[in-house]
Amino acid sequence: MDLNSDLGEGFGQWTLGDDDALLGVVTSANVACGFHASDASIMLRVCAKAVESGVAIGAQVGYRDLPGFGRRFIDMEPAALTADVVYQLGALEAFARIAGDRVRYVKPHGALYNAIVHHEEQAAAVVAAVVAYDRTLPVLGLPGSVFLAQAAAAGLTTVAEAFADRAYTPEGTLVSRRLDGAVLHDPAEIARRCVAMATGDLIADVDGGPLVLTPESICVHGDTPGAVEIARQVREALTTAGVTVAPFAP
Amino acid sequence: MDLNSDLGEGFGQWTLGDDDALLGVVTSANVACGFHASDASIMLRVCAKAVESGVAIGAQVGYRDLPGFGRRFIDMEPAALTADVVYQLGALEAFARIAGDRVRYVKPHGALYNAIVHHEEQAAAVVAAVVAYDRTLPVLGLPGSVFLAQAAAAGLTTVAEAFADRAYTPEGTLVSRRLDGAVLHDPAEIARRCVAMATGDLIADVDGGPLVLTPESICVHGDTPGAVEIARQVREALTTAGVTVAPFAP
Amino acid sequence: MDLNSDLGEGFGQWTLGDDDALLGVVTSANVACGFHASDASIMLRVCAKAVESGVAIGAQVGYRDLPGFGRRFIDMEPAALTADVVYQLGALEAFARIAGDRVRYVKPHGALYNAIVHHEEQAAAVVAAVVAYDRTLPVLGLPGSVFLAQAAAAGLTTVAEAFADRAYTPEGTLVSRRLDGAVLHDPAEIARRCVAMATGDLIADVDGGPLVLTPESICVHGDTPGAVEIARQVREALTTAGVTVAPFAP
Amino acid sequence: MDLNSDLGEGFGQWTLGDDDALLGVVTSANVACGFHASDASIMLRVCAKAVESGVAIGAQVGYRDLPGFGRRFIDMEPAALTADVVYQLGALEAFARIAGDRVRYVKPHGALYNAIVHHEEQAAAVVAAVVAYDRTLPVLGLPGSVFLAQAAAAGLTTVAEAFADRAYTPEGTLVSRRLDGAVLHDPAEIARRCVAMATGDLIADVDGGPLVLTPESICVHGDTPGAVEIARQVREALTTAGVTVAPFAP
Repeated sequence: MDLNSDLGEGFGQWTLGDDDALLGVVTSANVACGFHASDASIMLRVCAKAVESGVAIGAQVGYRDLPGFGRRFIDMEPAALTADVVYQLGALEAFARIAGDRVRYVKPHGALYNAIVHHEEQAAAVVAAVVAYDRTLPVLGLPGSVFLAQAAAAGLTTVAEAFADRAYTPEGTLVSRRLDGAVLHDPAEIARRCVAMATGDLIADVDGGPLVLTPESICVHGDTPGAVEIARQVREALTTAGVTVAPFAP
Repeated sequence: MDLNSDLGEGFGQWTLGDDDALLGVVTSANVACGFHASDASIMLRVCAKAVESGVAIGAQVGYRDLPGFGRRFIDMEPAALTADVVYQLGALEAFARIAGDRVRYVKPHGALYNAIVHHEEQAAAVVAAVVAYDRTLPVLGLPGSVFLAQAAAAGLTTVAEAFADRAYTPEGTLVSRRLDGAVLHDPAEIARRCVAMATGDLIADVDGGPLVLTPESICVHGDTPGAVEIARQVREALTTAGVTVAPFAP
Repeated sequence: MDLNSDLGEGFGQWTLGDDDALLGVVTSANVACGFHASDASIMLRVCAKAVESGVAIGAQVGYRDLPGFGRRFIDMEPAALTADVVYQLGALEAFARIAGDRVRYVKPHGALYNAIVHHEEQAAAVVAAVVAYDRTLPVLGLPGSVFLAQAAAAGLTTVAEAFADRAYTPEGTLVSRRLDGAVLHDPAEIARRCVAMATGDLIADVDGGPLVLTPESICVHGDTPGAVEIARQVREALTTAGVTVAPFAP
Repeated sequence: MDLNSDLGEGFGQWTLGDDDALLGVVTSANVACGFHASDASIMLRVCAKAVESGVAIGAQVGYRDLPGFGRRFIDMEPAALTADVVYQLGALEAFARIAGDRVRYVKPHGALYNAIVHHEEQAAAVVAAVVAYDRTLPVLGLPGSVFLAQAAAAGLTTVAEAFADRAYTPEGTLVSRRLDGAVLHDPAEIARRCVAMATGDLIADVDGGPLVLTPESICVHGDTPGAVEIARQVREALTTAGVTVAPFAP
């Protein structure tokens, strides 16, 4: 099982999350590329550390919106979105190569991630960027999303992820953050659920019913209090359960 | 002889210069990379057009200063400058590769170009970026500059350029733009001087004395009135004189 | 009748439209405030020129999106939008006051203008900004829009505008730019329609039927070829018809 | 004695320092204006809190350089710097007025603060901005700086500040941060020195010799570990010593 997390999300003088600690826990680093977070100096440092730590580098691409941290939908032209994604891929690739590796996958961020669950044109724009840039790059996203469906149709490798700390509906979709119980906080429970996801066992959906999720990667967060500790417990529980924790990317 | 010019210097809704016309005249396009001018959509379009036109793509790297168009010296940390240059190289490379080619050379822009004529730390920072990114990339710059000296010492290929429309001192350095006569305006005279530079003949320095310049590339401008027409006359005069006009980059 | 136009829409080195020419024609200048276009130096110059020319200064407020020129809807939190509008009002006010006048009205720009025709929360956010900043400031907008309705309900003075060069449906709404015939190009026809709007006469809707528009301001464009000439003809026709051309703002 | 500190230095999703805690300690808040830090939402909140807390609002103006946090000298045209400072003053004024107060003073930030200790043209540019905007606004700066000298010559009220946690040379200038001992860390020592500054007593210069500083305001930091605790001890020590702690601004 792969563990992915958002990294490199500071900007200039500002920091966010504990990149160094997370690089000791996760196996895939979604590195922000400077459009909604990060900058060249941060990308240089995070890529070097990721390669040292044996962590796969993925491109965390997003809208060009530093003031909004990429969390606001922007109704942009698909062709412009394609170009913006290509730009971010190329920028990150430079740092990955300098660090001795390369970009291993693509994961859209924030409002873009959410938009292309349903937004056909923007999903197609992101797929077009990956196809144009390097059609061997896997894309990481939400199972059932328009994005993964279009990516698969375009011949890209798709990787489905689950969220360690989120509740799921009986249909296997995420419970909206606006509802009570959408986010789990108990590290032990979160770790147990991740082991179940990794071994094909049942977890409880938000109503307590049985649900099976079969992700190829589990997303853990790094920017909330206790986040690193939760990530550590998830990894330890997986290892204890005999699950190999390793990057999905080859 | 190579003819280089700055291209892709618009931003979003704003345009600057006539990229399409210049791509029919020059042999090397210094494409802005989004830090002081340009954006992803512009880079995508200019790179595609450049490859169609057989024009070599170079990275016009600069300070991160869109409001100042990269024309203001920024006293930044060398390590941050190195990272910023790598970022720009990677971003442009993505578009050059999609267009079917790659980045062929690096030319610093504006205040950065001027700073590293003398500024040792920033010159070293730019050299370090090219060395780290791809030590086979030639750098284009001012003969006699600290930048080209450091680049050569680091094992990079250096390419000396002359300016088609600038007056030179008896020592072969540029006459300051603040002085009268610093910029030439007569297309016929400019074209004659370029032919002389290309064939090893004498040109007149600002005092009327004899001067020999031996550039490997001549820079023509694209953002002033009549600029494209001057560039065309330079190219025609070179061709008429039997000079092969072709990219310096392999 | 008031004639309003967008001004100060350059950025840094980049220009857009002919501000000086338009300031000789229009009576109200919608000055961009640096979020989607313009910068401090441009605002300083345009405000000084506007006051010299007897043109009223209005705040052309928009989304924070220089790369998109404010033409892309951003799904931002209403509270953040309110703050962003207040920021822009204050910034422009400084230049208006230095020039010897003050901000006389507010006109949202681009995608924000279009969004708040229908978007209740964002309309309310803009209204809240004006109410908080200065509830004596009139707002200029589209007749029938949610924005003007909410502004009126909040006690603000609302000013309805018509577009000189746009076709209208029989219901008096704008014909979508995606449809043929949405934009008029004949200066004489445009001028005649403006005179009709100013005198309460009929104009032809897009289907040729009779329509009466009663705007308090007519918007003329400045960023298209021939735009300034059209604006001049509109003004001349109004004057010839005995219509006083003057700012609506007191 | 006045205690001033930099506040509102987050940006978007990113935070820096503990604004709320500092607003319970200091008497003057240097609020960043969005060019090197802060944004409209932060300014709105900090101004409201400052007014609630009886803290005077000052404009912390800086270079337009979010990626560099305003800590990099930018060799910009004086006229553009004047315009940029006016823009920031106006933006902050809007939030100060909404909060029920107004901007009470101006304090340049970071590299601009340091530059105008010596840089005549940029110092003049900042002075020109304050004179144009509101010549009754005091400016806060370094005693002996070109900036304060020019401001005084222009008729502005100047306010000299000392730094609570910095060592001074025998001449009363700051010891360079590059030298050992430039920054003091012992809260008790820092508090004792501040009391001495406020009461006209001697402090020790970096060589142990006697030095008298007579600031009208003392700058305490808010962005370093333990910073708020140091600020609290300074305030308590001043109060215990019978010094009235209050804003210098009327």
